[in-house]
Amino acid sequence: MAKKQKTAISPTRTENYPEWYQQAIRASDMAELSPVRGCMVIKPWGYALWENIRRELDERFRETGVKNAYFPLFIPITFLEKEAEHVEGFAKECAVVTHHKLEKGENGKLVPGGPLTEPLIVRPTSETIIGDSFARWVSSYRDLPMLINQWANVVRWEMRTRIFLRTSEFLWQEGHTVHATKEEAKERTYMMLDIYRDVAESVLAMPVVCGEKSESEKFPGAETTLCIEAMMQDRKALQAGTSHFLGQNFAKASNIRFQTADKGEEYAWTTSWGVSTRLIGGLIMTHGDDDGIILPPRIASSHVVLMPIIRKDTDAGAILTYTHRIADALKKKKYHGRPVCVEIDSRQTGGARNWEWIKKGIPVRVEIGPRDMAENAVYVARRDASFRDAVSINRDRFIDGLPAMLDEIQQNLFNRAVAFRNANTRLIDEKEEFNRFFTPENPDRPGIHGGFALSCWCGSKACEEAIKQRLNVTIRCIPHNLPEAGETDTGTCIECGQKACRRVVFAKAY
Amino acid sequence: MAKKQKTAISPTRTENYPEWYQQAIRASDMAELSPVRGCMVIKPWGYALWENIRRELDERFRETGVKNAYFPLFIPITFLEKEAEHVEGFAKECAVVTHHKLEKGENGKLVPGGPLTEPLIVRPTSETIIGDSFARWVSSYRDLPMLINQWANVVRWEMRTRIFLRTSEFLWQEGHTVHATKEEAKERTYMMLDIYRDVAESVLAMPVVCGEKSESEKFPGAETTLCIEAMMQDRKALQAGTSHFLGQNFAKASNIRFQTADKGEEYAWTTSWGVSTRLIGGLIMTHGDDDGIILPPRIASSHVVLMPIIRKDTDAGAILTYTHRIADALKKKKYHGRPVCVEIDSRQTGGARNWEWIKKGIPVRVEIGPRDMAENAVYVARRDASFRDAVSINRDRFIDGLPAMLDEIQQNLFNRAVAFRNANTRLIDEKEEFNRFFTPENPDRPGIHGGFALSCWCGSKACEEAIKQRLNVTIRCIPHNLPEAGETDTGTCIECGQKACRRVVFAKAY
Repeated sequence: MAKKQKTAISPTRTENYPEWYQQAIRASDMAELSPVRGCMVIKPWGYALWENIRRELDERFRETGVKNAYFPLFIPITFLEKEAEHVEGFAKECAVVTHHKLEKGENGKLVPGGPLTEPLIVRPTSETIIGDSFARWVSSYRDLPMLINQWANVVRWEMRTRIFLRTSEFLWQEGHTVHATKEEAKERTYMMLDIYRDVAESVLAMPVVCGEKSESEKFPGAETTLCIEAMMQDRKALQAGTSHFLGQNFAKASNIRFQTADKGEEYAWTTSWGVSTRLIGGLIMTHGDDDGIILPPRIASSHVVLMPIIRKDTDAGAILTYTHRIADALKKKKYHGRPVCVEIDSRQTGGARNWEWIKKGIPVRVEIGPRDMAENAVYVARRDASFRDAVSINRDRFIDGLPAMLDEIQQNLFNRAVAFRNANTRLIDEKEEFNRFFTPENPDRPGIHGGFALSCWCGSKACEEAIKQRLNVTIRCIPHNLPEAGETDTGTCIECGQKACRRVVFAKAY
Repeated sequence: MAKKQKTAISPTRTENYPEWYQQAIRASDMAELSPVRGCMVIKPWGYALWENIRRELDERFRETGVKNAYFPLFIPITFLEKEAEHVEGFAKECAVVTHHKLEKGENGKLVPGGPLTEPLIVRPTSETIIGDSFARWVSSYRDLPMLINQWANVVRWEMRTRIFLRTSEFLWQEGHTVHATKEEAKERTYMMLDIYRDVAESVLAMPVVCGEKSESEKFPGAETTLCIEAMMQDRKALQAGTSHFLGQNFAKASNIRFQTADKGEEYAWTTSWGVSTRLIGGLIMTHGDDDGIILPPRIASSHVVLMPIIRKDTDAGAILTYTHRIADALKKKKYHGRPVCVEIDSRQTGGARNWEWIKKGIPVRVEIGPRDMAENAVYVARRDASFRDAVSINRDRFIDGLPAMLDEIQQNLFNRAVAFRNANTRLIDEKEEFNRFFTPENPDRPGIHGGFALSCWCGSKACEEAIKQRLNVTIRCIPHNLPEAGETDTGTCIECGQKACRRVVFAKAY
């Protein structure tokens, strides 16, 4: 394995985490910011991750009876206005379509022409436009539950954008369900959150805390917002998925009523839930190291790269044949329900080639030189280990053992992430300690400090706001289960000192 | 099988084909027009078709080395302007985003706020925005070919919309490739057209003519547009897919240059190719009958519905158990590479239930009553036969034989469509006959007449235009192979009588 000049990501994570994030993505060839303000281009290596995430979620959705459909990109302003909190939440950041053609302007330049009577907004989320359909589709309790999901692009005009984490356009799925009873709708909200938790933990190897948002952090128009929160390597929290119990708010706004079994008429109960391409950002910031991105095998764009080494005195044909035979054998293996995905990189660029694949985060790299072939072996490096820890393995043993090796990598990445989160989660009951926890020791390196503080909160908006103002720290969730078991769930409010308060997760957040 | 009052689609196809189309879609529960002008809602039964089309195409694309990616929804006007013909073709029908938020207006109503310095258009197609990326990604001949596909929504502001066929927003795939040589780019254009032909014919059971568009019908900015053209049941043509050789036009517009092997620098050669949700409209108008939609098994949203019949004196539990056992056995069977997809409809609505599934076009319907169970049989109806032609089949024979039955239906639908097209394709060399062919005998029923006229054309725009003005007939394509073999390929122009002209396909078109 190449031991040449190390060409890792610059800066390192501790030097400048946000910049490391940008550079790691650039070096991985996953995505880039486009010339269109705040929009990204997702390149094949990154898009494959999204396709894998989609497949994993889609299977799980279907098992619970959810069906996919597709609704319009555009929403009339009057629809948005139907729910007061909802419009309040989205009016400040939506793209507005006002014209339907371009015309030659005075200086010969093209300008908007054909003004629309009613402007349309580009969907930031689809509760109101899907609610309009539901109102027509639902008439009797026999039509319920109605379980719909949409894979789509949405637009929220963000002022400060960061690739994958906060972009003006992003890809997501949004599930929307209608139920006859409050209990059933609530149950659905929890059910979908658990699917998100499962995919985050068992597929993305990203441990999450499940919980409920405080009043001020919930979705505009929801009764309750459930969420999964992950800890990134700079110890900030990332909201990785949300599931909303909407009560009858949107049913009333969109007029979704149904005839009950005893001929009465009632407003329905609805839910919505979504995850987005943001998950890819979470993946990067959970697993990456100073050499770049690390992809968990179950979600990886590809599993293994074979790199034949052909020197002047090498029998190139023989090496390539040996390589392709290994590739064919690997492709017949299955890992996590799909065929093992193999890349062959025959470019002879020495260490540069190896470093490219390190930075792309492929789980396993294999070099194949004349000596390896002579020994019926391959030279194998795992991305979860140091780039120096490559070993020679018998060819057949490698082929047969690859699925197990991939699972080991998957488990190792998850364990590492859990250990990191636990090491940076602290039970804090003293205000002084709380303040210190969230104040960087070195102001020149503000990126790396804090973590999850499990502290008690009285439930008042005033305390929540005071903490946010002072430390830029928010309540990430009122957890369903505390990340550290066996701890007391109540105490005195970390801000005002009032008694018998609920323990919640505080953190800085993306 | 129910022989009650027939509840077919009204009107019939001969009575009013366009209205039959709308009603057949409504009755199938596949899709509906939305309250947003020109946009549709694709419901689960229709969206499943699109997911199946996507899977079929995606597999074939990948086999040729194409990778999926995702590019921005918005395009700066200046990008569109880079290619003169292109902007001319799309400026008249594009949605323009001019603002990035909503504000309270004078009367308290929300109005567009935050004007953009440069308005953006919602992509009608992505040559220019993807070209911008290609210009950055391509630098050497070693980077080529670059083979990218995108699954996305696009918007073209159509004045007259028809569900699936012509909607303001639609779903599609658009492939974009970059090559070092003209020959390779041209070869790619043909390669992708052949994939479209294959999916249309072998999966959608929709026969198509492959050919090249005339100058006036080609894609704005293309050198050559290849297409597949299908004949609908009203004998009009549907352009079902296009593949464009773009020459160096877009490479020059977007500045896509590469260093050649001998250190020179050249503009690249590009292609683009796409099919859309329009294919679903084509499917409906190729196979539907007066009872509604007929889905070819290889693309069907589901393959078979089981309908247990439970009467007052029936042992409901036994019938349901019998039904579920059959369903479980069927789901273990594979058809066309995926598990057989089974619906169970236990509603006891008699003939209404049966008619619902007829109208949804499911390939096979199975009724299961007490007598069937007693005889270890099922009562089976095929959607490609009359609703009266149901037969009793031994249970195990039915289960084992279902994949073969589905393939028989698939083949039967294709053969019927080929026969229909051939019966309505005519070699015409006399202008009088040509005019008669395209003029309805009964002006009250203008929908059903004409077909494909294989006639010669001198190549002049004037003749093309004259025919279009007089008969509303256009050149659908200059075919690669004539639908009727063995015929002469040249003759005198059907319009001007000039000699040695090429035989082309004339038709009215969607």
